[in-house]
Amino acid sequence: MSSKSKKMRMNWEVPASKMSHQTFNPIRNIVDTMKLTPNPDKEMIALSIGDPTVFNNLPIPEHINKCVVDKIHGQKHNGYNPSIGYEDSRAAVAKYSSTPGKELTAKDVVLTGGCSMALDLCICVLANPGQNILVPMPGFSIYKTLAESHGIQVKHYNLRPEKNWEVDLDHLESLIDDKTATILINNPSNPCGSVFSRNHLLSILELAKRHKVPIIADEIYEHFVFSGNEYHSLGSLSDDVPILSCSGLTKRFLVPGWRLGWIVINDRHDTFTEVRAGLVRLSQRLLGPNSIVQAALPEILSATPEHFFDETVQYVEENARNFYNRISKVPGLRPVEPQGAMYMMIGIDIDCFPGIKDDVDFTERMVKEQSVFCLPAQCFQFPNFFRVVLTIPKAKVSTACERIEEFCKKHYCPSKATNGSTGSDKLTNGSGSH
Amino acid sequence: MSSKSKKMRMNWEVPASKMSHQTFNPIRNIVDTMKLTPNPDKEMIALSIGDPTVFNNLPIPEHINKCVVDKIHGQKHNGYNPSIGYEDSRAAVAKYSSTPGKELTAKDVVLTGGCSMALDLCICVLANPGQNILVPMPGFSIYKTLAESHGIQVKHYNLRPEKNWEVDLDHLESLIDDKTATILINNPSNPCGSVFSRNHLLSILELAKRHKVPIIADEIYEHFVFSGNEYHSLGSLSDDVPILSCSGLTKRFLVPGWRLGWIVINDRHDTFTEVRAGLVRLSQRLLGPNSIVQAALPEILSATPEHFFDETVQYVEENARNFYNRISKVPGLRPVEPQGAMYMMIGIDIDCFPGIKDDVDFTERMVKEQSVFCLPAQCFQFPNFFRVVLTIPKAKVSTACERIEEFCKKHYCPSKATNGSTGSDKLTNGSGSH
Ligand SMILES: Cc1ncc(COP(=O)(O)O)c(C=O)c1O
Ligand SMILES: Cc1ncc(COP(=O)(O)O)c(C=O)c1O
Repeated sequence: MSSKSKKMRMNWEVPASKMSHQTFNPIRNIVDTMKLTPNPDKEMIALSIGDPTVFNNLPIPEHINKCVVDKIHGQKHNGYNPSIGYEDSRAAVAKYSSTPGKELTAKDVVLTGGCSMALDLCICVLANPGQNILVPMPGFSIYKTLAESHGIQVKHYNLRPEKNWEVDLDHLESLIDDKTATILINNPSNPCGSVFSRNHLLSILELAKRHKVPIIADEIYEHFVFSGNEYHSLGSLSDDVPILSCSGLTKRFLVPGWRLGWIVINDRHDTFTEVRAGLVRLSQRLLGPNSIVQAALPEILSATPEHFFDETVQYVEENARNFYNRISKVPGLRPVEPQGAMYMMIGIDIDCFPGIKDDVDFTERMVKEQSVFCLPAQCFQFPNFFRVVLTIPKAKVSTACERIEEFCKKHYCPSKATNGSTGSDKLTNGSGSH
Repeated sequence: MSSKSKKMRMNWEVPASKMSHQTFNPIRNIVDTMKLTPNPDKEMIALSIGDPTVFNNLPIPEHINKCVVDKIHGQKHNGYNPSIGYEDSRAAVAKYSSTPGKELTAKDVVLTGGCSMALDLCICVLANPGQNILVPMPGFSIYKTLAESHGIQVKHYNLRPEKNWEVDLDHLESLIDDKTATILINNPSNPCGSVFSRNHLLSILELAKRHKVPIIADEIYEHFVFSGNEYHSLGSLSDDVPILSCSGLTKRFLVPGWRLGWIVINDRHDTFTEVRAGLVRLSQRLLGPNSIVQAALPEILSATPEHFFDETVQYVEENARNFYNRISKVPGLRPVEPQGAMYMMIGIDIDCFPGIKDDVDFTERMVKEQSVFCLPAQCFQFPNFFRVVLTIPKAKVSTACERIEEFCKKHYCPSKATNGSTGSDKLTNGSGSH
């Protein structure tokens, strides 16, 4: 009994693991501690939720539903599928993601439970605990959540609001060290609504090539670009840099709940041989996305009418234009005109709003006074901006803008701004690096 | 340039991460290296695949499909759901899993992408790298795959074939040390087809209580028991021991591809307060299972006709009986009569088969000569047994048995067995611990 009893725990103490402690969603940490009490006299308008389905104003085409319903009735796809996904479904994604001269095949595709799982597998296969990955700032918070849960460090590279949120290449380059496992590029961007030009993407590739750092491209908003802009996948432009591209049905097909995502392996000169095998092994942990949606995927990708995509983008673009034009005229706010995706970032000349501390305070008070809820950009590591979601019903845009205007007019006090250049410093987030 | 260039990598070498290397599925490692060339004169019978849908002989009731199709047409569930699942759906699982005196509520449930993800979250929230978890031998390989991918060690406790695969409690107890984070109990069992009695479960609980080690209960085969046996969830029997129970639609509802699983938190005296919060955080990494199936879950759980479950179990039970009776008479084989789930384990008196090295060799040659493929139990860390799947069409059972019989008769050589007791040693896997 002696040596045994020494080992025995005397009380029930069940601690949660280190991984569970180092897993957290920064958005939740901020939003859950905000005081969100709307003005009882005004109906709440939530411009905060990056879910294009919540307002029921963007229905999906009957065609997509039919594809899935047919597969359910067929009763042929209730079983396990290969952990990386059905061959046919992967071939369909390969076709959908191929560009001239950069043809992909089923073996270049891994299906996943949403783009989140695609990102998780890519981060997990490329980086070890103790290494770092470079992620955009402002940027979507899941990169941090996923990486840090595995003990992988994130380093933030700056985006430049005054340059349509292009990557600050010097800053990015300065962050690369011998522990840098990958650079994450998000284009089009959440939260910025930016779309990188071909040239800018080529500059990023050139940098990655020089340092021999592979890229994870989060392209969940692929093709979601407004008129006058053009979408290029990073994979389509790369001759040397190996790229794992992540996307899925979530945004373009307006079905985030369906959890169907994928990784496209843009291998160059067989650099990813080990990584491919690693992705297959990692996929065996959880066995891929829902089989019915997987089975419907080839038809969803090939036969969803083009006008559905066009209409969705036009809808969001019109909202973007209206928001931008209205907010541009609001004193103390500096919207950055979006080029795609579903969001717009708005800078706050915070010094012009005496008594308002920062973006969290600003958005909290806008809820209290005007029942308009926007996400403070601290959620994206970018203080003194806030993000609006552009998928809301058109009729609400104008009310939302009126209320934001009213709020700003009430609190704006231009004399408090020291001068124009300070305002502009704020716009660039005061990081001092541009 | 000097200090910078030192850091620069000169070649594209993109190694896969440690995690991806330490993630592997032992079944794949064995099966993928087996020579599986069937006899061209005999149609292949695969008794190897733990997927009850592959033979199309066990259709799911129209009711279940209807629940899902209705939700698709409703267009109300395409959006993101809370990462732990819709409240209604969690409430439905709570109700489904409650037992008298052990009532559960929605807050005790986390929905996941299949039972695999449920197990992954439970292992991740309870154990740290460097700690160990105790898993059954023979046992389902995913515990090892999941734990080792995170650098968590697995230690195998023996099950006793001669005692209907009950846990060797002394052996289990001997493995507990101060690094033991949790004991994993799988009941009913894959690959054993065993169902633990109430008394045996109480003994396990008593042991866990004494050592204050929480339990993960893999109950994906819950209620799947043959006549004469009774199913008790571990949670229903525990007064002290905190238990995370994992289950899902996969087996009982015959839809493994749908990837709908869950964790039921059987908290006792608020021992799991930290663990609950940890599970919520971990669930935010990947955002839960498909929203449509989630939305259909309340109706699937409450209104699937009882006779569907009964008929499925009866079907499998009849196969079990036929298999057992036939194989019992085959020289050199020692089937262990199954009590539930979908499998039967069969011991091989390997010394009586001269020239056949082990279970892998045995099953490989059975494919070559008889076109019958059974999984060698090395896949479950239990050499010189093999596992047969009991969900195959009834008509094939008798052919399969005939062929197994023919194979054994051809190779059996009783004189090679030294004596009966040696054979019996083999049956208990020669582990020397019983
Ligand atoms: C940039 C970006 N990447 C990834 C995701 C996650 O996508 P999914 O819902 O497919 O996991 C989102 C969702 O909002 C996103 O905005
Ligand atoms: C014992 C056991 N646990 C868990 C699982 C995995 O279940 P799921 O397909 O829901 O992930 C299986 C699948 O065969 C199993 O046999």
